[in-house]
Amino acid sequence: MQELIKYGKKIVTAGLAHSHFGNVSKRVGDQMLISTTGSMLDELEGQIVTVPVDSASPDELDVIASTEVNVHRAIYNATSALAILHGHSKYAVVESLLHESQIVPEDSESIYFLHEIPVVTGGIGSEELARNAASALRDHKGTIARGHGTFARGATVDEAFVILSSIEHACMVKYLLDMARKS
Amino acid sequence: MQELIKYGKKIVTAGLAHSHFGNVSKRVGDQMLISTTGSMLDELEGQIVTVPVDSASPDELDVIASTEVNVHRAIYNATSALAILHGHSKYAVVESLLHESQIVPEDSESIYFLHEIPVVTGGIGSEELARNAASALRDHKGTIARGHGTFARGATVDEAFVILSSIEHACMVKYLLDMARKS
Amino acid sequence: MQELIKYGKKIVTAGLAHSHFGNVSKRVGDQMLISTTGSMLDELEGQIVTVPVDSASPDELDVIASTEVNVHRAIYNATSALAILHGHSKYAVVESLLHESQIVPEDSESIYFLHEIPVVTGGIGSEELARNAASALRDHKGTIARGHGTFARGATVDEAFVILSSIEHACMVKYLLDMARKS
Amino acid sequence: MQELIKYGKKIVTAGLAHSHFGNVSKRVGDQMLISTTGSMLDELEGQIVTVPVDSASPDELDVIASTEVNVHRAIYNATSALAILHGHSKYAVVESLLHESQIVPEDSESIYFLHEIPVVTGGIGSEELARNAASALRDHKGTIARGHGTFARGATVDEAFVILSSIEHACMVKYLLDMARKS
Repeated sequence: MQELIKYGKKIVTAGLAHSHFGNVSKRVGDQMLISTTGSMLDELEGQIVTVPVDSASPDELDVIASTEVNVHRAIYNATSALAILHGHSKYAVVESLLHESQIVPEDSESIYFLHEIPVVTGGIGSEELARNAASALRDHKGTIARGHGTFARGATVDEAFVILSSIEHACMVKYLLDMARKS
Repeated sequence: MQELIKYGKKIVTAGLAHSHFGNVSKRVGDQMLISTTGSMLDELEGQIVTVPVDSASPDELDVIASTEVNVHRAIYNATSALAILHGHSKYAVVESLLHESQIVPEDSESIYFLHEIPVVTGGIGSEELARNAASALRDHKGTIARGHGTFARGATVDEAFVILSSIEHACMVKYLLDMARKS
Repeated sequence: MQELIKYGKKIVTAGLAHSHFGNVSKRVGDQMLISTTGSMLDELEGQIVTVPVDSASPDELDVIASTEVNVHRAIYNATSALAILHGHSKYAVVESLLHESQIVPEDSESIYFLHEIPVVTGGIGSEELARNAASALRDHKGTIARGHGTFARGATVDEAFVILSSIEHACMVKYLLDMARKS
Repeated sequence: MQELIKYGKKIVTAGLAHSHFGNVSKRVGDQMLISTTGSMLDELEGQIVTVPVDSASPDELDVIASTEVNVHRAIYNATSALAILHGHSKYAVVESLLHESQIVPEDSESIYFLHEIPVVTGGIGSEELARNAASALRDHKGTIARGHGTFARGATVDEAFVILSSIEHACMVKYLLDMARKS
């Protein structure tokens, strides 16, 4: 729990998300810790609930969990992820609206860590988004929901943060390069 | 009062306003707590005064309240707002000078939360601005005074912060997208 | 002294200068407190010395004062300033290289507070820069040394910070507007 | 060690690198203190190891040192550096992909401190990068590995930070200027 609280603050400080636009979770066995709906990412103290990963047995706490709890569930079911971070990072949102299906990074670190970044569709918290994000994260560590924000997974919260951070880096570098080459 | 002090700091940390360029208030019954004129937004300790919402009975503290106290009064009189945050956010200022009457966001969160962002006219602290901002905020949660800055309202200071933050997000994303498409 | 230390940190946090690229001073009678040469702006503890405003009687501490102490002296001699802040703000530097003699802001706050922002020439710490900056600051509260950085004056350190901050705001807004209109 | 921990935090706060994308070291005689592989730059407490500068006698701690320990070794062997900071600064990465062999700054501070900034090639942690970075740093205080990030050297950690910071400043100013002139 302390780890999610800490990384919530780091996400905001690093400019990877703002106010309550994002959510974070960590899997522990068949349960997951997840931030509550509408909670400020840099003030998650007392704003994290535990709900089952399996949605077949819905929990009474589901109603106060993030409205994107279904996306987290789908990702945990489809991948080996033990942590998921989601944030409305600005350059990731911009690049996802400029590229149809994927973004190909140009900086060495992103080429090495991310290969390419899939862009998926689906409304905020929709089943379509849950399905598409989970599918994209089978083969990648991060994906961008078009016009919405990044979902990053990791074996640890730490690793998910590196991916979230790296995707914004890749997208900002690519945006600036493309502008320089076009003009 | 603690809430306004806290959000004053958050506004500056998040880059939504700088030095003393902005003001914050909270309605409590027929009174409002408002930051004083010329006060630094990230140092509001001892810089918040209480004045009546109704300007018919002007208060002696009016002279040290923000010079835009009249805009806050007009908004409280015209809407159900219980909190108002105003900050000179950079991309909001830029977009307000590039669009005549409104800005239509392109990212999912802003489409969902803001629909469109009305741009209003009127000099700093003028009656024209008070009238126009209040009118725009009847149907919207935030508006941008052209070339000046954002006014966001909420049922709580928290909610007003989400709107202030979301408008800057929407404007930055839109600016970057428009530049990429034009070039 | 505490005030200069505090504003040194605020300048760096606000992104108005970085590492040791800037200097700050405050006039007290015939003396001034000024940051030492090479000192980090966000760590001015123990890095502030007192030297005379009048350079006719040079002080042994002059050698460890900022290398731009002469610019501060010229400004104090030519104006009513009681505080001067200098920082290598990025958009101010960029705009000063794009405009010959002055920058005309487009946002309301800068039009109101700054009118226009004179751009002056002269090498780092040179007599030419001292003369030109002092002359520009007779009629303005801030000026940008071309390709170098902003000098802001005030009756208080507080006021000088507002000007430093406002000039960067004006320059960033103008840069973004000009790019959008040109493309 | 405290110095490296402190500057790790300053690098992240200043936006000169993010999450674990960078590494820092300090030479003490024939040994160097260096951050461990995968360590977060703003949380280096307990994440710094001591290894020999000379690679002829490899140390068991080598396996947990930064994967770019060989680049640090080559630089210490080729220059008088006593500290090296490396970070994936965004504008430096962008400019290194836009310029073949060097970047010529346009702001006064960078012209004065850096003259020009050599761009070198070589994969992350490769011998080619070690050779090229060391060679470039014989005559310069900083260099950018193409598409990867900045390496800055100094007689102190302090000085290396000034160079790291100054290179990002130079690159951002140059990028913005070039965009304005081209459009």
